[in-house]
Amino acid sequence: MRVIDRQAIENMALGASLLGTGGGGDPYIGKLMALNAIEQHGPVTMISASEIPDDALVVPSAMMGAPVVVVEKLPNGTEGMSSFRNLEKMLGKKIYATLPIEAGGLNSMIPIAVAAQVGIPLVDADGMGRAFPELQMVTFHLDGIPASPMVLADEKGNYIYLEAISNDAAEGFAREITVQMGATAMICIYSMTGKQVKESAIHNILSYSENIGAIISAGLTDKQNPIEELLAATRGYLLFQGKISDVVRTTESGFNRGQAFIEGIGEFNAQQMEVCFQNENLLAKIGNQVMAMTPDLICIVDLHTMVPVTTEALRYGRRVMVLGLPCHEKWRTAKGIQTVGPRYFGYDLNYVEIEELASRRGLRGV
Amino acid sequence: MRVIDRQAIENMALGASLLGTGGGGDPYIGKLMALNAIEQHGPVTMISASEIPDDALVVPSAMMGAPVVVVEKLPNGTEGMSSFRNLEKMLGKKIYATLPIEAGGLNSMIPIAVAAQVGIPLVDADGMGRAFPELQMVTFHLDGIPASPMVLADEKGNYIYLEAISNDAAEGFAREITVQMGATAMICIYSMTGKQVKESAIHNILSYSENIGAIISAGLTDKQNPIEELLAATRGYLLFQGKISDVVRTTESGFNRGQAFIEGIGEFNAQQMEVCFQNENLLAKIGNQVMAMTPDLICIVDLHTMVPVTTEALRYGRRVMVLGLPCHEKWRTAKGIQTVGPRYFGYDLNYVEIEELASRRGLRGV
Repeated sequence: MRVIDRQAIENMALGASLLGTGGGGDPYIGKLMALNAIEQHGPVTMISASEIPDDALVVPSAMMGAPVVVVEKLPNGTEGMSSFRNLEKMLGKKIYATLPIEAGGLNSMIPIAVAAQVGIPLVDADGMGRAFPELQMVTFHLDGIPASPMVLADEKGNYIYLEAISNDAAEGFAREITVQMGATAMICIYSMTGKQVKESAIHNILSYSENIGAIISAGLTDKQNPIEELLAATRGYLLFQGKISDVVRTTESGFNRGQAFIEGIGEFNAQQMEVCFQNENLLAKIGNQVMAMTPDLICIVDLHTMVPVTTEALRYGRRVMVLGLPCHEKWRTAKGIQTVGPRYFGYDLNYVEIEELASRRGLRGV
Repeated sequence: MRVIDRQAIENMALGASLLGTGGGGDPYIGKLMALNAIEQHGPVTMISASEIPDDALVVPSAMMGAPVVVVEKLPNGTEGMSSFRNLEKMLGKKIYATLPIEAGGLNSMIPIAVAAQVGIPLVDADGMGRAFPELQMVTFHLDGIPASPMVLADEKGNYIYLEAISNDAAEGFAREITVQMGATAMICIYSMTGKQVKESAIHNILSYSENIGAIISAGLTDKQNPIEELLAATRGYLLFQGKISDVVRTTESGFNRGQAFIEGIGEFNAQQMEVCFQNENLLAKIGNQVMAMTPDLICIVDLHTMVPVTTEALRYGRRVMVLGLPCHEKWRTAKGIQTVGPRYFGYDLNYVEIEELASRRGLRGV
């Protein structure tokens, strides 16, 4: 248990943004929201999953929708509070703590803001260990925990409580409602017991994000590229480096979809990488050679600073590195691959672990 | 106060189907649902609005969506019960009675089924005195009563509770959710007090429907066309008679939209009528001459029996009469015309009352 300070929040937002693999929202907006909530409502205590009583009610909180819209359509700062109070009314029980459902610059920070508003602890755990675009793509779903009851709220004051018969149905309803709310919504979902958090969540993900953020941040201060420390801390691989030559994107059904094309430089000269994304980066190829695929993490970072580049910040001319990080082992089970593997997203590929792909290609790790 | 029997239900469904002006659902399905619920749960008592205590909680119930779908996707018979119980939980008060929001073969009957399931009285009143396609098109809205909180439920077991910041927002969310539920949903909406029902609802509409249904039904028994009695009972006009030559329709955004074209016969020989609909009939023209327009009622009935023909039953070759009935005076106010007048539906026309249009054209009334 510890109180998280400004420095911790800044590093968490930065590190979570790397694990967001292009999605999970903008860390600058996320950080401002968390810091602002703490300034208004007081500090937030972070506890580990093991510190939650087994029978406590724990409710993850997040922002759903196309993160690009959040920049222009900020939450009003009370949706979290009203959603939690309404959910408590329906469930007839006080909520003990909140946690993120995913890593990401925004979605790691939303639960901090909610924890400050509601006055409850934040749990150092999440449901992905990275970011994914759909609600059933969480370890909670793999373990059979229902997404419902869930609530959705927008900054205008609209509020919806949903009981869906399946997690896929919950995703379907929530996606339509989010679009109707203007492409983003504050959500509370996967209410569970302390025992379920201990068994199903990915532990210590916020501390891990903070550690990654501290490495990138130290590099910025020292004006040193921290690529080696970063790959060591994440067991990652350098997949590519180059200059973005084209980005094709559409915002449809509440998602940012598209591809980024990167012309190689340095040791990757004369090669081209294509990164496909749906909010998050899902597939990285050099020509026809797959270099990494979902559920492993494909992270685009600034070539010099290692600062993560979100999907909405991909621009022609930007010089970047593409890193590949192994995902959490929960995603490598049969149900995990069925839920978030390449075939779910429409790619005609069998999942191959990044460690195996990297060893085939003699890639640089640590 | 009286217990409504099978005969009353059959006549109400038939008469409400005329007032449904093509929408409001199929009276055969509606009748079966009401009779089935009464058989399972016991008889339903109908009370007049004046019999409700002023502070009682009254909640209208209805089916929302494209009625054509209901034929293939019947409610499971428990949505009304679960929706009412959940709404009571949120509002912290028992529901005293239910009523229809609109006339129509199905939507006059749904509250009977709900009243039987929940064991509460049915109020002899509604919010339209006819049928209209959108949720804010009720006298309750004209009087400033909020549509929220509302609930939507489907036959699979999905359940949604909605608090929207405006009635237009409620319509927007409910429409998307209904589409996601498979184009139809059971809804509870416009919760209000007994006092509000007395002031805002259109009174005695179920008795009025029953009376219309009895006239049509007697005509069927006697093999006599009851056109004169029908026009007398409804202060209506015979606008046209002919054979349907074409029907253009699309099911989009949860609505049935389109036009029916009718080739005149008898006194209307060599003329063509066009009837435009969005679930309900909204505009009737002979050539460029407007014969009737929303909010007045445009009713298509069988040429010989006067049995109402719903929008989804319009077919090439069918011989029909088109009747025009004056709407309730509440729709002829400035706010009424703004809410349901021709311009709201995209027609570049100022509303002219059917009595005025009929007197200009020397039409046959009584």
